[in-house]
Amino acid sequence: MSASGCVLCDSDGGVLLHAAADWRLVRTDDTPSHPVFYRLIWNHHVAEFSELSAAERHHCMDTLARLERAMRDGLQAAGLPARKINLASLGNVVPHLHWHLVARFDADAHFPAPIWAPAVRADDSGHLQRLRAALLALDAALVTATAAA
Amino acid sequence: MSASGCVLCDSDGGVLLHAAADWRLVRTDDTPSHPVFYRLIWNHHVAEFSELSAAERHHCMDTLARLERAMRDGLQAAGLPARKINLASLGNVVPHLHWHLVARFDADAHFPAPIWAPAVRADDSGHLQRLRAALLALDAALVTATAAA
Repeated sequence: MSASGCVLCDSDGGVLLHAAADWRLVRTDDTPSHPVFYRLIWNHHVAEFSELSAAERHHCMDTLARLERAMRDGLQAAGLPARKINLASLGNVVPHLHWHLVARFDADAHFPAPIWAPAVRADDSGHLQRLRAALLALDAALVTATAAA
Repeated sequence: MSASGCVLCDSDGGVLLHAAADWRLVRTDDTPSHPVFYRLIWNHHVAEFSELSAAERHHCMDTLARLERAMRDGLQAAGLPARKINLASLGNVVPHLHWHLVARFDADAHFPAPIWAPAVRADDSGHLQRLRAALLALDAALVTATAAA
């Protein structure tokens, strides 16, 4: 089921990495200070997490947990360990269920504040460059991690 | 298991509403612009959601979904329907797993931005007063909703 005029029914809002029956995985390209930012988008149009059935919720969160772990492991392997992974389902602007997964680092412009808060320091261009150089391998690791989900 | 010096191992950070074997439900009292703000705190000290077992994750998210639905229903019954429920597990400042549940309204100071972003309008004191007047009934509805979880 889809909703007329819904951005996430009509498009991916980023780089589509994998499309499964119930969800798709997208890397966002609109947060330059936070390049390790993925979205798990539920394919059917529902606004709230609690509108999913129990089986759908479990499948959704099993997938999210696999992605979170793959992010942590992939960043660790790249020598760029995340300080924290942030998960959020907000949907105020686009009320179509999607989960944000964002890797956070001591050096990032907002840490420890949420990424939506005012920046607390300047971008670390060297750190961002190293993160961006690791993205293709990380994309692949995330896609692999979801294969069993 | 608890961690030395962890604020959420040692305290609740708000009004404790219910303590279950694995989690506790707290209403925060530190976000005056967003009074309908609860936290589901996992009792054991883990930093990341993916550190839970599959059974723990399902239990955690089943509980969160029950709370979300009770928030939506309770606010609807009070004549104060939420425009959106926001869910987030950030933990940058306190890396002990806890989920934020925040009801959002067209009238709130940040909507549709995240609550952590700069405000986009002044608080609506009348709306906030009506929300605060509904909190005790909402607390009770949330506790009841978790009884079957």
